Amino acid sequence: MATLRELADRVGAKIAGDPDLQIRRVAAIDEAEEGDITFISNPKYRNQLLSTRASAIIVPSSVKPAGYNLLISRNPYLDFARILTHMQGPRPEARGVLPGAMIDSSARISENSTIHPGCIVGADVKVGRGSVLFPGVVLYEGVEIGEDCTLHAGVVVRERCRIGNRVIIQPSSVIGSDGFGFAPDGTRYFKIPQVGIVVIEDDVEIGAGSCIDRATLGKTRIGRGVKIDNLVQIAHNVDVGEDTIIVSQVGISGSTRIGKHCTFGGQSATAGHLSIGDNVTIAARGGVTNDVEPDRIMAGLPLMPHKEWLKATTSYARLPEIRKEISRMKRQLEELEKRIKKG
Amino acid sequence: MATLRELADRVGAKIAGDPDLQIRRVAAIDEAEEGDITFISNPKYRNQLLSTRASAIIVPSSVKPAGYNLLISRNPYLDFARILTHMQGPRPEARGVLPGAMIDSSARISENSTIHPGCIVGADVKVGRGSVLFPGVVLYEGVEIGEDCTLHAGVVVRERCRIGNRVIIQPSSVIGSDGFGFAPDGTRYFKIPQVGIVVIEDDVEIGAGSCIDRATLGKTRIGRGVKIDNLVQIAHNVDVGEDTIIVSQVGISGSTRIGKHCTFGGQSATAGHLSIGDNVTIAARGGVTNDVEPDRIMAGLPLMPHKEWLKATTSYARLPEIRKEISRMKRQLEELEKRIKKG
Amino acid sequence: MATLRELADRVGAKIAGDPDLQIRRVAAIDEAEEGDITFISNPKYRNQLLSTRASAIIVPSSVKPAGYNLLISRNPYLDFARILTHMQGPRPEARGVLPGAMIDSSARISENSTIHPGCIVGADVKVGRGSVLFPGVVLYEGVEIGEDCTLHAGVVVRERCRIGNRVIIQPSSVIGSDGFGFAPDGTRYFKIPQVGIVVIEDDVEIGAGSCIDRATLGKTRIGRGVKIDNLVQIAHNVDVGEDTIIVSQVGISGSTRIGKHCTFGGQSATAGHLSIGDNVTIAARGGVTNDVEPDRIMAGLPLMPHKEWLKATTSYARLPEIRKEISRMKRQLEELEKRIKKG
Repeated sequence: MATLRELADRVGAKIAGDPDLQIRRVAAIDEAEEGDITFISNPKYRNQLLSTRASAIIVPSSVKPAGYNLLISRNPYLDFARILTHMQGPRPEARGVLPGAMIDSSARISENSTIHPGCIVGADVKVGRGSVLFPGVVLYEGVEIGEDCTLHAGVVVRERCRIGNRVIIQPSSVIGSDGFGFAPDGTRYFKIPQVGIVVIEDDVEIGAGSCIDRATLGKTRIGRGVKIDNLVQIAHNVDVGEDTIIVSQVGISGSTRIGKHCTFGGQSATAGHLSIGDNVTIAARGGVTNDVEPDRIMAGLPLMPHKEWLKATTSYARLPEIRKEISRMKRQLEELEKRIKKG
Repeated sequence: MATLRELADRVGAKIAGDPDLQIRRVAAIDEAEEGDITFISNPKYRNQLLSTRASAIIVPSSVKPAGYNLLISRNPYLDFARILTHMQGPRPEARGVLPGAMIDSSARISENSTIHPGCIVGADVKVGRGSVLFPGVVLYEGVEIGEDCTLHAGVVVRERCRIGNRVIIQPSSVIGSDGFGFAPDGTRYFKIPQVGIVVIEDDVEIGAGSCIDRATLGKTRIGRGVKIDNLVQIAHNVDVGEDTIIVSQVGISGSTRIGKHCTFGGQSATAGHLSIGDNVTIAARGGVTNDVEPDRIMAGLPLMPHKEWLKATTSYARLPEIRKEISRMKRQLEELEKRIKKG
Repeated sequence: MATLRELADRVGAKIAGDPDLQIRRVAAIDEAEEGDITFISNPKYRNQLLSTRASAIIVPSSVKPAGYNLLISRNPYLDFARILTHMQGPRPEARGVLPGAMIDSSARISENSTIHPGCIVGADVKVGRGSVLFPGVVLYEGVEIGEDCTLHAGVVVRERCRIGNRVIIQPSSVIGSDGFGFAPDGTRYFKIPQVGIVVIEDDVEIGAGSCIDRATLGKTRIGRGVKIDNLVQIAHNVDVGEDTIIVSQVGISGSTRIGKHCTFGGQSATAGHLSIGDNVTIAARGGVTNDVEPDRIMAGLPLMPHKEWLKATTSYARLPEIRKEISRMKRQLEELEKRIKKG
């Protein structure tokens, strides 16, 4: 519970209506009940205000309907997230190593962490204060986990990989699996040992079921603040720059370097050994087969500027029509030629 | 073991040949041995009858070869499945909570369930009668599992998610991972807490390694009878209608609503916040970027009616030829113009 | 530690420089320090020799710079892999069944294997000498694992599946999940029991988070020497020929047969019930919807010879331009016709 005034002060917003209103919960605009606060970030949804039962609404300054309790925000979506985070309350208190967790005697686990039952922690592992390992997490030998991390159930981190602070990993993701490297030896393949590591920097989030391969030599790096969705594949020796967003089912091939503040849409992919600049956006299902300059918005396979891609795809659906047109013109041309020859 | 008569009675089929024939096993037509029953659902495979060693064959009424023991069926494929199910025998008897499972004292586990070693069950969890948790299943606090469910090894269900009756989840799938939601805050991203849940209704099957994200607020819903294959991504707040089929490696983006009886082919995908009607088929690798009306069969990216897509892709391979044709015509045109100007 | 002479003898290479040089480690050319050996496999990277601090370099005979300690190799990439393997040392000694592993009393586990804590091994399982199960591996009843296998944390192998010798499976992969088979029964679907198995032959490697479904009846087969990357889907009754390479996020649909020595690029896929010959290459994102003859290099959806695909994709980006060209020609034609009619 918090008053509208407390929430507004917390995020630096203004109020219209009753500052002492008690807020119980954050809810979606169509599911909110009395006592809830909800939000509108886009003025085009303002009509939903008419039917919501929420007691208060976070709105942009361009939407200020009379007769509502409002929290007027410069960035309603961000303030919704901040208020929702506040209403969640603080992280639960650390509970230490719980019965049923198996910890190697050489591991150094902060007393202020929580290690759930079924976790298995190898030799020389370090886990920092405030970190939580949910049931069934496996840390191979020499893994380092920073402070205030959350590793969900079934996460596996292989030997010597290093994870920074405030990193969140959703269930069943794998950090440090072997890169896919084989040297042809006649008709067979010889496995190239993958002896490098993965380094995940601070404030990264990794979705469920994603895989980040260890480097052959050296390291695969996920830069500070990177957000990776579910079922994403990051191959060996990839380097992902700070604050880049990688949406679900993306595949990044080996040794590719991605800049800062990039966005990869769902199911997009890159070939290996490429360099992609800062602030690049690759649209969903885009396929990157060459280096990309900074600040580009690209799409398609072959990759092209997004605007060109939109035009090309529009034409694509009309290909059969285009072919008919060409056939017609061809006949016209032949007739014209005949007539001219005759004439 | 069962007689041909018993099997025919069970599925309501007719018999030609020996009703007292003892059937030992169901087998593929090219692998069957004496004592086996096999099936033919498509008359075009009738030639395989000549070489099979099966003792009996499930056939459609349009295929009734003389000299075989036949089970004549209105729906041979369905009756094959039903007979195979019958020959499997009943579900094994419940064994209760086995040693090596760790169950929170507040959990309410039916005595008629089976909880294998290595399962970890959190506070306030409910598991209904007849349900089986294979080794290493993790249920976070407040999860509810209905009756006769099967959760295979390594499945993770996060806090408060609800699973109906007769639900099957293959190994390593994740239910209730955080949705991928971040609010831009300058150049960085602020995590939006994902406080909703996932609701999986009765008779759903989910493949291996699939991920179904919890809602930001409210719920992600998988409707009754939905079948989801391996490595599928379902984002937060998605709603999937009853009896819809989602094939492997499909990605459904956030807040999209899918109707009943739809089919999504392998590697197809949707953008977020879309509405897709009932009985829609999206062909493999189709990319849905706009709402889709009911009863449509669609394909491609951009998405188009499947028939148009077939034509467009045929033209696609001929693009270089089309360009040559255009160049030829251009030259012809220029020559004609010259001649007319001269003339 | 090894001398340059020892390494050269081991791989059958020649030496230039100091044969008694002590080599401490294998490192990438830009990260190598004194005491390291590195490699150059492609002469185009020879300029990197100028800046490397490595004490010795594996080179092809076409690159023999003076003043360096060289290991001159017929196949530098393969010899790099072999030397790296040698420098890793032998496999750690077997440690037997470690405390915290749960093994059914009917399982037959070689004394010379290593079963880590948190592994759960079912009835009648066999594990051969030299094999290692990392923490949290689950083997259902009747599974057979050969010799010198490595199953990483969280791997699940379901009932009766058989794995050969020297097989490596990265974390969280699933072997033997149910195939995706349902018989329509009116508007609902009836599950077809999947009672077959998966057979994985010798020297196969499977990446992280991949899924290989068991056959409906009979077996899904992964042939000797096949290498499968992360997040790959292999459906029921698929047969993959020896030494085939399947890159990340590929999907192979049910009952498709793939030849030997094929290569499937990332995110490529096949429809079901197809036959693909030996030595076929499918480029990244290729979509196979018909049988493919041996020795073909194919790409695209629709699938076409790779050379044609390159031409078609080049044309694709120019589609809007092509349409403009056609419009221009159409106008020209109409004008010509008018003039001729007038004339």
